[in-house]
Amino acid sequence: MKNDNTFHMDIDDFRKYGKLMVDFIADYYENIETFPVKSKVKPGEIKEKLPDHAPSNGESFESIINDVTDIIMPGITHWQSPNFFAYFPSNTSFPSILGELLSAGFGVQGMLWETSPACTELEIHVLDWLVDMLGLPAKFRSGNAGGGVIQDSASSAALCALLSAREKITDYNTNISGCNSRITVYASTQTHSSIEKAVKIAGIGSKNLRLIDVDETLSMRPKALARKIRKDKDDGFIPAFVCATVGTTSSNAIDPIEEIGKICRHENVWMHVDAAMAGTAAICHEYRYILDGIEYADSCCFNPHKWMFTNFDCDCFYVADKKALIKTLSILPEYLKNKTSESDNIIDYRDWQIPLGRRFRSLKLWFVIRYYGVEGLKYHIRKHVKLAKKFVSWVKKSPMFQLAAPAPLNLVCFRHINGDDFNRKLLARLNENGQLYMTHTVIDNLYTIRMCISQTNTEERHIKRAWEIINKTARELDN
Amino acid sequence: MKNDNTFHMDIDDFRKYGKLMVDFIADYYENIETFPVKSKVKPGEIKEKLPDHAPSNGESFESIINDVTDIIMPGITHWQSPNFFAYFPSNTSFPSILGELLSAGFGVQGMLWETSPACTELEIHVLDWLVDMLGLPAKFRSGNAGGGVIQDSASSAALCALLSAREKITDYNTNISGCNSRITVYASTQTHSSIEKAVKIAGIGSKNLRLIDVDETLSMRPKALARKIRKDKDDGFIPAFVCATVGTTSSNAIDPIEEIGKICRHENVWMHVDAAMAGTAAICHEYRYILDGIEYADSCCFNPHKWMFTNFDCDCFYVADKKALIKTLSILPEYLKNKTSESDNIIDYRDWQIPLGRRFRSLKLWFVIRYYGVEGLKYHIRKHVKLAKKFVSWVKKSPMFQLAAPAPLNLVCFRHINGDDFNRKLLARLNENGQLYMTHTVIDNLYTIRMCISQTNTEERHIKRAWEIINKTARELDN
Repeated sequence: MKNDNTFHMDIDDFRKYGKLMVDFIADYYENIETFPVKSKVKPGEIKEKLPDHAPSNGESFESIINDVTDIIMPGITHWQSPNFFAYFPSNTSFPSILGELLSAGFGVQGMLWETSPACTELEIHVLDWLVDMLGLPAKFRSGNAGGGVIQDSASSAALCALLSAREKITDYNTNISGCNSRITVYASTQTHSSIEKAVKIAGIGSKNLRLIDVDETLSMRPKALARKIRKDKDDGFIPAFVCATVGTTSSNAIDPIEEIGKICRHENVWMHVDAAMAGTAAICHEYRYILDGIEYADSCCFNPHKWMFTNFDCDCFYVADKKALIKTLSILPEYLKNKTSESDNIIDYRDWQIPLGRRFRSLKLWFVIRYYGVEGLKYHIRKHVKLAKKFVSWVKKSPMFQLAAPAPLNLVCFRHINGDDFNRKLLARLNENGQLYMTHTVIDNLYTIRMCISQTNTEERHIKRAWEIINKTARELDN
Repeated sequence: MKNDNTFHMDIDDFRKYGKLMVDFIADYYENIETFPVKSKVKPGEIKEKLPDHAPSNGESFESIINDVTDIIMPGITHWQSPNFFAYFPSNTSFPSILGELLSAGFGVQGMLWETSPACTELEIHVLDWLVDMLGLPAKFRSGNAGGGVIQDSASSAALCALLSAREKITDYNTNISGCNSRITVYASTQTHSSIEKAVKIAGIGSKNLRLIDVDETLSMRPKALARKIRKDKDDGFIPAFVCATVGTTSSNAIDPIEEIGKICRHENVWMHVDAAMAGTAAICHEYRYILDGIEYADSCCFNPHKWMFTNFDCDCFYVADKKALIKTLSILPEYLKNKTSESDNIIDYRDWQIPLGRRFRSLKLWFVIRYYGVEGLKYHIRKHVKLAKKFVSWVKKSPMFQLAAPAPLNLVCFRHINGDDFNRKLLARLNENGQLYMTHTVIDNLYTIRMCISQTNTEERHIKRAWEIINKTARELDN
């Protein structure tokens, strides 16, 4: 019963409703395959069911939970369904959910070492573990000149990297030299939209973003990059930043970071490697080649919240020179000063990110890595890649479908031979049907279906069923 | 038992360990007052206890939980202790923890309306509720030209506002006109460090941040602002953005936003109102005066994760002209295009924030508002202000202590009459002792102790005890 004097939920009720919520979530996962993967509601449908005004008097927890079932649930697109193949995954797992629960329970705000030393030190430590797990160079370990930090997303990581590069090249004096329309940034035509967003935010301007051509595998052409940087320098621009992508969002293309890195080193340009989704694969030795050349990177990131079963948000961002990052983002007002921060042997993560405050996000990552173990994680990555290769073999054998791009890891880009309109209709019908959810891209100017096979609980039976449904639906449409 | 074939935690184990975790958190809150509020560990002490490498094989959930108790717990600074008076609070409550748990369970990524309509629509709706609850102008409601969005922090909200102002004044052509060292930004000398950080990030440069003088209540002097804007215009600068603060971090000073707003309107400068901590007070009619003049604001924000019992991160950010924000932050690659987004009647929140991805954060806010009801929330805000006023009366009566600044709401700034060194030692000893945690600021060039009385579970007995400990410790130090 609610405590009528304080309006708080008392501790016994928290025990009761907490357990009810755990069962609610467990039931959800037990039944997740019975829901249409992509929500079928129309715009405004959820909002209409909600009362116009907040309640004056508190309501029972039961009534809130009932509304979750009745009002919220129909508006959920089920990212955790094993039949979710859209975008890139945003995976979670039970150990991760429990880590997030504990983080919410502690409710610490880890902006400074001092505001919860465990929050900072566990994060440092788990990010050091991941340097070894992925075979990243030692320079990214906290004991050396670099270090790692959890960001909310690869977008924010790219922004922090770009800002550091901008400040470094202007000798930390953007305020003096100005972002005077001369700083230039480079990425392939396939690069994630977050790079253009970062370029805009940083005041560099989209016009100074150079999109470098790609080869037939949709990977950046290093020679084209080298030529463009040279030309820009000749024209009086200041090349500051290259983003190389390991696993583009469109097709999982892998830029040759060794060649790109050598160019950047030669031209004194910051190289950031965005391995947001694909990076996790590097925990398996046979896929570690995707990061060949990573020793040339000034910064890199990958997202355990995509393919490492750790719920959003959790992007691991590494810099080779932490001083560049800190000099870029540090502002120190009196009310944040403290003795420990002034010593040199601790990290205050507020200076490693855009916001000041931060949650205890390393808990969930620690829970996941410990519960699965490195071998458990490898098992799942290998399984997903194997399933994707199986799916590729089916596409290749099919007279109706063709592969649209190489599928090095877990993303299969394919299309029906009947052309753009047909593929557009096919995808729409498949997603409306609710049995699976995929999204699209455009490759070689052709409408292309993307099937990313990486959801935590996706098994062979799910992709078999998906392939059957795709074929059946295509045949129906073709008649 | 762990599923040895898949390494996953199976659903029955999730039920078991989930309930164990709920009890763990409940036990934590039952015992929270027995822990030293500020962690006593030394730098490196937590990290030393962690193994050098991630485990190859998965470990039991029991062993993880044991390490939470043995290794992590000593490194926690207890933000949820009722004896936590440091910084500004980062409050949570049981309904909020359960909302966060559900959000982690659903694991949806709400970057687009389509990727979970309920995630977007509940957020729109709850932020509309809050417009009414705080008495904000109707222009900030979603049905009008404006709208609200949840950001991770007031820092990110200020950055989004500043970027929108920068783009608006350059006619959305920063890339052409350049942030050419002419755009200027204004805030009081007491403004939060996030404004300078945003100015740096946006490429405007710290030198173009004008810090405006304050009066004896530490509030911005509007006439000084008007003069500075005039002078800058005369000198060829482009004044673009003013941040007015309602409740500064240092002393809870309240800038006169009506006067500032009129100046901004006259000079065609964007006014952002940062009410991160104090804004919540506006749900009580008697404190709503703090937002007098808010109708002049182009944007504003406040943080339910500070004083509204909703766990970090949850900043509510409102803009009067959502098109300015969207034009500033929207980038649309093919793989994110979809039919619904192209219609005009939905919101894709990815265009309202720095990162692309986003959690289902409105759930916890909805849980809190519904469980407490508006009256329950008012009860707690009023109680905190009453306790702060009581504490002020004790300080005023004391021959040893003096008030350092007005205390309009929940923050009391005070100091011992023995001067800076004494106050510095006093605060250090109080915090080392572990019975309470406060932080400091500098006001009128004097070292000042800050006591913020706003933790979810702080009662009169906690502040009485705090006052006794402060006096006892001061007397001991004075001998």
